[in-house]
Amino acid sequence: MADLMTIACPTETLEADYRRVRDLTEELAAPLSPEDQTVQSMPDTSPTKWHRAHTTWFFETFLLQPQVPSYSMFHPAFAYLFNSYYESVGDRFPRPHRGVVSRPGAAEVAAYRAYVDEAMGALLSGDLAPVVADLVALGLHHEQQHQELLLMDVKHLLAANPLRPAYLAIDEPTPEPQVPARRVAHPGGIVEIGYGGEGFAFDNECPRHEVVLRPFTLEARPVTCGDWIAFISDGGYEVAEHWLADGWAAVKAGGWRAPLYWSELDRSWSVFTLGGERSVNPAEPVCHVSYYEADAFARWAGGRLPTEAEWEAVASSRPVEGNFLDRNVLHPGPVGSESSLFGDVWQWTSSDYSAYPGFRPAAGAVGEYNGKFMVSQQVLRGGCCVTPVGHTRASYRNFFPPSARWPFTGLRLAHDS
Amino acid sequence: MADLMTIACPTETLEADYRRVRDLTEELAAPLSPEDQTVQSMPDTSPTKWHRAHTTWFFETFLLQPQVPSYSMFHPAFAYLFNSYYESVGDRFPRPHRGVVSRPGAAEVAAYRAYVDEAMGALLSGDLAPVVADLVALGLHHEQQHQELLLMDVKHLLAANPLRPAYLAIDEPTPEPQVPARRVAHPGGIVEIGYGGEGFAFDNECPRHEVVLRPFTLEARPVTCGDWIAFISDGGYEVAEHWLADGWAAVKAGGWRAPLYWSELDRSWSVFTLGGERSVNPAEPVCHVSYYEADAFARWAGGRLPTEAEWEAVASSRPVEGNFLDRNVLHPGPVGSESSLFGDVWQWTSSDYSAYPGFRPAAGAVGEYNGKFMVSQQVLRGGCCVTPVGHTRASYRNFFPPSARWPFTGLRLAHDS
Amino acid sequence: MADLMTIACPTETLEADYRRVRDLTEELAAPLSPEDQTVQSMPDTSPTKWHRAHTTWFFETFLLQPQVPSYSMFHPAFAYLFNSYYESVGDRFPRPHRGVVSRPGAAEVAAYRAYVDEAMGALLSGDLAPVVADLVALGLHHEQQHQELLLMDVKHLLAANPLRPAYLAIDEPTPEPQVPARRVAHPGGIVEIGYGGEGFAFDNECPRHEVVLRPFTLEARPVTCGDWIAFISDGGYEVAEHWLADGWAAVKAGGWRAPLYWSELDRSWSVFTLGGERSVNPAEPVCHVSYYEADAFARWAGGRLPTEAEWEAVASSRPVEGNFLDRNVLHPGPVGSESSLFGDVWQWTSSDYSAYPGFRPAAGAVGEYNGKFMVSQQVLRGGCCVTPVGHTRASYRNFFPPSARWPFTGLRLAHDS
Amino acid sequence: MADLMTIACPTETLEADYRRVRDLTEELAAPLSPEDQTVQSMPDTSPTKWHRAHTTWFFETFLLQPQVPSYSMFHPAFAYLFNSYYESVGDRFPRPHRGVVSRPGAAEVAAYRAYVDEAMGALLSGDLAPVVADLVALGLHHEQQHQELLLMDVKHLLAANPLRPAYLAIDEPTPEPQVPARRVAHPGGIVEIGYGGEGFAFDNECPRHEVVLRPFTLEARPVTCGDWIAFISDGGYEVAEHWLADGWAAVKAGGWRAPLYWSELDRSWSVFTLGGERSVNPAEPVCHVSYYEADAFARWAGGRLPTEAEWEAVASSRPVEGNFLDRNVLHPGPVGSESSLFGDVWQWTSSDYSAYPGFRPAAGAVGEYNGKFMVSQQVLRGGCCVTPVGHTRASYRNFFPPSARWPFTGLRLAHDS
Repeated sequence: MADLMTIACPTETLEADYRRVRDLTEELAAPLSPEDQTVQSMPDTSPTKWHRAHTTWFFETFLLQPQVPSYSMFHPAFAYLFNSYYESVGDRFPRPHRGVVSRPGAAEVAAYRAYVDEAMGALLSGDLAPVVADLVALGLHHEQQHQELLLMDVKHLLAANPLRPAYLAIDEPTPEPQVPARRVAHPGGIVEIGYGGEGFAFDNECPRHEVVLRPFTLEARPVTCGDWIAFISDGGYEVAEHWLADGWAAVKAGGWRAPLYWSELDRSWSVFTLGGERSVNPAEPVCHVSYYEADAFARWAGGRLPTEAEWEAVASSRPVEGNFLDRNVLHPGPVGSESSLFGDVWQWTSSDYSAYPGFRPAAGAVGEYNGKFMVSQQVLRGGCCVTPVGHTRASYRNFFPPSARWPFTGLRLAHDS
Repeated sequence: MADLMTIACPTETLEADYRRVRDLTEELAAPLSPEDQTVQSMPDTSPTKWHRAHTTWFFETFLLQPQVPSYSMFHPAFAYLFNSYYESVGDRFPRPHRGVVSRPGAAEVAAYRAYVDEAMGALLSGDLAPVVADLVALGLHHEQQHQELLLMDVKHLLAANPLRPAYLAIDEPTPEPQVPARRVAHPGGIVEIGYGGEGFAFDNECPRHEVVLRPFTLEARPVTCGDWIAFISDGGYEVAEHWLADGWAAVKAGGWRAPLYWSELDRSWSVFTLGGERSVNPAEPVCHVSYYEADAFARWAGGRLPTEAEWEAVASSRPVEGNFLDRNVLHPGPVGSESSLFGDVWQWTSSDYSAYPGFRPAAGAVGEYNGKFMVSQQVLRGGCCVTPVGHTRASYRNFFPPSARWPFTGLRLAHDS
Repeated sequence: MADLMTIACPTETLEADYRRVRDLTEELAAPLSPEDQTVQSMPDTSPTKWHRAHTTWFFETFLLQPQVPSYSMFHPAFAYLFNSYYESVGDRFPRPHRGVVSRPGAAEVAAYRAYVDEAMGALLSGDLAPVVADLVALGLHHEQQHQELLLMDVKHLLAANPLRPAYLAIDEPTPEPQVPARRVAHPGGIVEIGYGGEGFAFDNECPRHEVVLRPFTLEARPVTCGDWIAFISDGGYEVAEHWLADGWAAVKAGGWRAPLYWSELDRSWSVFTLGGERSVNPAEPVCHVSYYEADAFARWAGGRLPTEAEWEAVASSRPVEGNFLDRNVLHPGPVGSESSLFGDVWQWTSSDYSAYPGFRPAAGAVGEYNGKFMVSQQVLRGGCCVTPVGHTRASYRNFFPPSARWPFTGLRLAHDS
Repeated sequence: MADLMTIACPTETLEADYRRVRDLTEELAAPLSPEDQTVQSMPDTSPTKWHRAHTTWFFETFLLQPQVPSYSMFHPAFAYLFNSYYESVGDRFPRPHRGVVSRPGAAEVAAYRAYVDEAMGALLSGDLAPVVADLVALGLHHEQQHQELLLMDVKHLLAANPLRPAYLAIDEPTPEPQVPARRVAHPGGIVEIGYGGEGFAFDNECPRHEVVLRPFTLEARPVTCGDWIAFISDGGYEVAEHWLADGWAAVKAGGWRAPLYWSELDRSWSVFTLGGERSVNPAEPVCHVSYYEADAFARWAGGRLPTEAEWEAVASSRPVEGNFLDRNVLHPGPVGSESSLFGDVWQWTSSDYSAYPGFRPAAGAVGEYNGKFMVSQQVLRGGCCVTPVGHTRASYRNFFPPSARWPFTGLRLAHDS
């Protein structure tokens, strides 16, 4: 099992990729009971069995139905139940009520997956037109995104349970003090960002284009929990001047005084992880902070968040290595004065999520994949400790609303030179 | 299994009663998957596994802990998780979030039940002080109430699923036309209401006391679906003058145009039942209408709802027989020009739920059982098709807010003489 | 001006009554600026100029339009703007948005009143059919109700202003300690309640009918602020066991810890009145408490609230005298060990607001006046310090939802004998 | 009066500017009754008398208190009542409740203005340190912003009144058909944007900096009502594929089917203006559309919204002339195939409102002026028909949330070359 989790997606054949990605989803769901897989702990999350079914629906809807004339739907109502947000392929069940649907249950979803996998196996064993192969690749990257969402959502669910059950038993690293960050200087000037390669990329990473940067430095490691404890101790959550107006309103409305999943007992901080409750490790990147918190921290610290272009200008020359999805970890790991730009925590940037110049959505219904979310969200970069290996890259643009805290979100500071 | 469902609660021994009632709960849960048992489909309902655990918590908290010195709690957190509303026995998990708690799962709840049942078996096999025996009886009637709630809640859950799955396969009676109701006359005068017997009754049925009634008639059968279709056809849901102000606001806000679970297709009405979707049977008592709808119907029909005293004055001389919980039915059955006052549907009365003169809540924490809900609710009488046999009686006072539609609620008209 | 306020409504002629009541409304509005008269400080209140216009609309709609063929409407849109809740006379402007309508302004409303008064003067100077005269009387009692509402609403408005401006300058009585209440005993038995006289009464006070009472005592004065301070000091707002479930939820949601308009500074309580901020006077009846608070206090104090029948059984032999609307007071006055049953504060009863046996709503659109509110409200009795003199009587039934605090609401305890 | 409205702000002396700007505010309020000036028609708007007082508070707080030792506050509570959002100068009254405060009334606000104006006159007649003069200029531009807000807010208020009263009687231009837009080409490349002059600019326009543009064209006139009618007729509001996900949700939640203030009667569109209700003029720029609508229209039309850099690159060489605040117009005027980039309607850009590279907020409390709103808002450019003459410029950045419709917001299309 561990193998699957630590092997990257792109391999020799699409068929092998398909099997590997699909198997990983089931592997991630395996520690969860039917009850666990049923619950939606808030409107933004989805039940595990919904993730398992929806990713299957993607292949059924965009590959099997158009490409395999003899294909017979597993169940006629599933097109309605498991469509996430594709307006052009029909009505769909309201998102906030996904947790009300107890049937199909986890076992029937497994049967649905097996049925579709068998049909997909037949399709993949033949010759595929490039546009069809591209859709399969999209479906696999889509499923990888849901693998990460599944773990984010399960963490939220388990944290909402007063019993605070762990997803898996995981060894806990010994807490250690954090050390100051080194800084990486960039000279600025005209740089190119966006995806320019031959492999897979989402439409929102394109086209590659020029931007002008001023000279800047980027800190060589993310902000750590030790840094964050200093922020809290200095009244970070109590001084309005550090905060955006919307952020301050969120602090007040939500009673925020620490990152999500932190709790204080006897003047020491603990944190809920997928491995259960732990002491906060000062050397670990801080995680589960909103954009508002990241922005306030940066202002307090005398720095700022990088733009996505700055981040990519530095990251594009770095290897895509780091602490990605590994079921023996599932949590940010301790860092020294520098660390990879990739893995551990998604890093908030000061860039809103909008179209690159010349952006064209993908053709067909999958054109709804990214473009229609381009407002009121911030870009995050780098991948995190529950991102499947091989899923991210320097040009990869993740995005969430500025109030989101349940993804594995952290930050890395920039400074004007 | 069917035996359990159709045999009344009171038997020779409390021990046998205990086993019979407890077994019935498990029998009712048996057709439900772990996923079904986990979902809370709206804030007013509870997951099946919560009902199973909460009724167990009642015995653990009010019997085993105080009475059995050697008793060791099954799980220390369950006192918090499964307390419904007893302020005096400690904090409790917020009701609207019961559906977020995936663990303990259905199997662990079964183990909890077995553990408590074993300890209760030991307790019940000894001599019990009368006050203790009374608490056991209260716990059993409490569990019977939750048996009915469990089925109400499951019906709501299954109806929210676009697949509209049945709880059980049940034979559907052939629809037949309704016939006009006969009327039963009562001369009025001073009558006594409230429980005056030696058996079990809830504190809210006491003390027995005198009231003055004017002469009146009570219809000899509940209002039927055929009656209701006439109301709808006459614009019942569209004419404000029929309605209480709050009722009219509810019609507008909820888009009500028929009882809950009814839907119209091709000008004919169907209804979702625990046995699945069916044609509406005109001869059946209408069910799943709010107090607002019952009151509007009565005004439209030129009658009125009875007071609870009027209802009881007629019912007290009738046998407590009728269409109660039977897993081969689980739905109101067709009626002629007269039918039992008991069973089929709870009947809304025009009486608000308040204390009888001289009311004293039961001593101790169980004093919270009834008294603290005595505001902004209406009394219902008679029991329904999912009320366990033996659970109700002429003095029994059920109560719900006037907007509630998910209980098995109907009505019976009264008229001034 | 003071004369108008202290002379009772019923006089020799309807014409004189009309002029007196109509003048008093304008007198009550006189201290208020156009700005004051425009604001709606919460959805349950209405702007002063709306009250002035709506009471005028009543005469225009129910008297002038049907009775005076030559009558020409002052403004065609006012029928829509100033209908409060009469469904049968057409659409109406949504209640919660009354404060958004800046025009017509206070001066145009004055012109509207003068226009209607002139036409009414002509109508009243002729011979009136009894049914028409009854409608005029209804209109005048309706306007008296709005005089009280106007002052309640203005108090809420001024209290919401951080400047805490007074409605009028009023001399403040010297605070004095409260003394214990005496009790009045009633033997119980069959008594008649409801209006049985020849004068004006609302339909909801009829028909007069018999009820059975058990022997009881009623305290001879309302609960005082001194009593209430003892309740607060004893943790009254902090102990769930005193409260109805809905009441406890309201305490938590609203952060209640004292009556509305009370505030604590340096361990002493002050209260906002129509005469401005004052020290709380322990000898004054407590005012601006919800039904929930009244009920909780009664339970804490070892008493209970009376039923409306009990209250009326005692009150029916008492003179209707007390601290009513007087612009030199406008606040409950200090009481000794006994005081009138009328005036000072409306007294919550444990009776819900429902139809008397044999109740028939008034014919026509004014049948909507009372009957359609008969659910989820509690009856209050006695009148208060802003009730116009002559407006109330022993059978008068006021009603508000159990959460209401902005009316002048207090309580008087009863005890089982 | 008209003179004041049509003369630009910057003149020979700050003192004269001060008087001119301050007088214009009072001139704009003059047609409004005290009642009109009191109402807050939704949480986003403010009462006229609040705008008048708040702009005065700005001078009292940031100029008179720090600079004039002998200055005595007009009223101690006004600092609390009329602070809009400056956290660092103390607590403030909650924004959504501004409409509840009836006092001070319009006349007392006039006295407040006169009092502060007198003290400011004395201050301005002496020598001012440059930093102080800058604060005065900021206060004047701040007041000009509130002049526009005042008119936006009044329009919303009057439109909420079923009587649909006009703010002023204004001659209505004869409707005429729209003509197609010409396009202006820009070659792209590296351009500088941001304020680089010596005069007044807000901190958010700085620093001036380079950006890279691709070749593009900008339409030479805004989108017109005629264009918009074509969009509506083609099902623009009914086809999800045109819309951002958040936009489609807003369409559904708000029941949007035309711009704000439009209504359809007998298949023809009318629009509410500050001059009252009119027929929609196809040749006029469409106004009161949200960002969501602007974006959907652009997608439907096969174009896109320009970035703010593209807009400014074209506008920076154009004269700042157009249809600005003129009390004989107060509405967008008909356009031909080209028109000014300035005036008529604020034009939504695809750029979110964020900091320019190297942005530094102004020092002191006024640093809260702009920076803290830099999230979840979109930039608008150009000024509109209620923007005071002289207030805007090519680098001026206005911003609103993407759902806002009550500002005078329209759009201009761009196209990739």
